[in-house]
Amino acid sequence: MANSAQEKLTDAAILTAIAPLPGWTVKNGKLHREYKFADFAHALGFMMTAAPSIEKMDHHPEWANVYSRVTVDLMTHDAGGITRKDVELAGLLEGIAKKLL
Amino acid sequence: MANSAQEKLTDAAILTAIAPLPGWTVKNGKLHREYKFADFAHALGFMMTAAPSIEKMDHHPEWANVYSRVTVDLMTHDAGGITRKDVELAGLLEGIAKKLL
Amino acid sequence: MANSAQEKLTDAAILTAIAPLPGWTVKNGKLHREYKFADFAHALGFMMTAAPSIEKMDHHPEWANVYSRVTVDLMTHDAGGITRKDVELAGLLEGIAKKLL
Amino acid sequence: MANSAQEKLTDAAILTAIAPLPGWTVKNGKLHREYKFADFAHALGFMMTAAPSIEKMDHHPEWANVYSRVTVDLMTHDAGGITRKDVELAGLLEGIAKKLL
Repeated sequence: MANSAQEKLTDAAILTAIAPLPGWTVKNGKLHREYKFADFAHALGFMMTAAPSIEKMDHHPEWANVYSRVTVDLMTHDAGGITRKDVELAGLLEGIAKKLL
Repeated sequence: MANSAQEKLTDAAILTAIAPLPGWTVKNGKLHREYKFADFAHALGFMMTAAPSIEKMDHHPEWANVYSRVTVDLMTHDAGGITRKDVELAGLLEGIAKKLL
Repeated sequence: MANSAQEKLTDAAILTAIAPLPGWTVKNGKLHREYKFADFAHALGFMMTAAPSIEKMDHHPEWANVYSRVTVDLMTHDAGGITRKDVELAGLLEGIAKKLL
Repeated sequence: MANSAQEKLTDAAILTAIAPLPGWTVKNGKLHREYKFADFAHALGFMMTAAPSIEKMDHHPEWANVYSRVTVDLMTHDAGGITRKDVELAGLLEGIAKKLL
C-alpha cells in the first residue's frame, strides 16, 4: 500500500469518501458534480481560482462550461477508476465552488 | 432581415463562413473545434483570455477542458442552429487560440 | 446633467457613496481598497471573476497583486477624479471579493 | 552553495542572466518589465496563463495591471535581493507574454 492515493477505490469506499461532499455522485465510473453559478463570470472565476491548486496537485479534472454552469468529472486514468486523488480534488473544488455559488 | 446575426445559416453559408477558420467543422449541428495546447495552464489561459470578449458579445460557448485540451461547440439556441454570431465567436476564439497554441 | 456617471463627485458625495462599502477609502484622489485573500489562487481568482464584468462596464481598475493581496485604485481619467462609475465598479468588486475572502 | 537558486546575485551576474530576456531591467533592486498587450483581456489572460506555473514554482511576482498594461517586479525577500529564482520566473513570464503580445 505504498501509494494508496493512486489505488482504485471500491464502490463502498467511494460512497464513504464523498459522503461529506454535497452534490457529488458517481456517474459513468467518475466522480461527478454539476454547478450552477450566478453567471458566466462566476463559472469561469471558479475554474480560474481552482487552476493553480489543480496544477500543484498535478491531477486534472474533466470539466465543461456552458454559460453559468460547470460540470466536473474526475477519475484516475492510470488506476482505471476513482482514487483518493479524485476524492481530494473533489474536496478542493467543492471548497472553492461553495464560496462562489 | 433586420437581425441577420441571429438567423440560422444554411449549410452552404456555414461552410463558406468557416472556410477561413482552420480546424473548424460542423459536428452535431454545431460549429466545432478541438484545441491542444502545450499544457493545462495554456488551455485555461486561452479560456480566460477569451472570457471578457465573450461576455461583451453576450454569446457563450459550450467548451470543455481536460488537461491541455479544449473542445468548443457553438450554436445559437434561439435560432435552433448556427448563426453569424457563432461564426463571429469562432473567429474571436481562433484569434486568441492561435497565439497560445 | 446628461451623463452624471462621468461627472467628478464632490468629497462629500464620495464619502456618502462609499459608506456602504466596508474598507473602501479615498487615497491620492482615488477610491482605494486592499484585499487579503487566503492565497495566491484566490487573489487571482478574484481578478478573473471580476474581469468579464469590468470589460462589459468598459471601466477598468488599477490593481496590483502580490501573493494573496490585491490592491485596487479607481478613478476616472476623463473626469479628473472619482465619479459614479468608480463607485459602481467598487461595488461590483466588493460583491465578488467578499465571496472569496 | 547548497541552494544557489536562493542566493542574492551580484549586479554583474544579474545583467548576464537577463541578457537573453528583452525588455527586462533592474529597477529599485528588482527585476522589472512593463508589458503592453492589445487590450485588457490579453493583459489578464497573460496573468491567468502564468498563474498555475507561478504557483507550482512557489515564487510569486509583484505585478500590477491597468487596462492593457502589466508591470512586473521580481525579487526574493528571504535573500534581500534578486536571485536565480527571480531570473527563472522572469523567463517563464517572458515566454508566456511574448505569445500574447
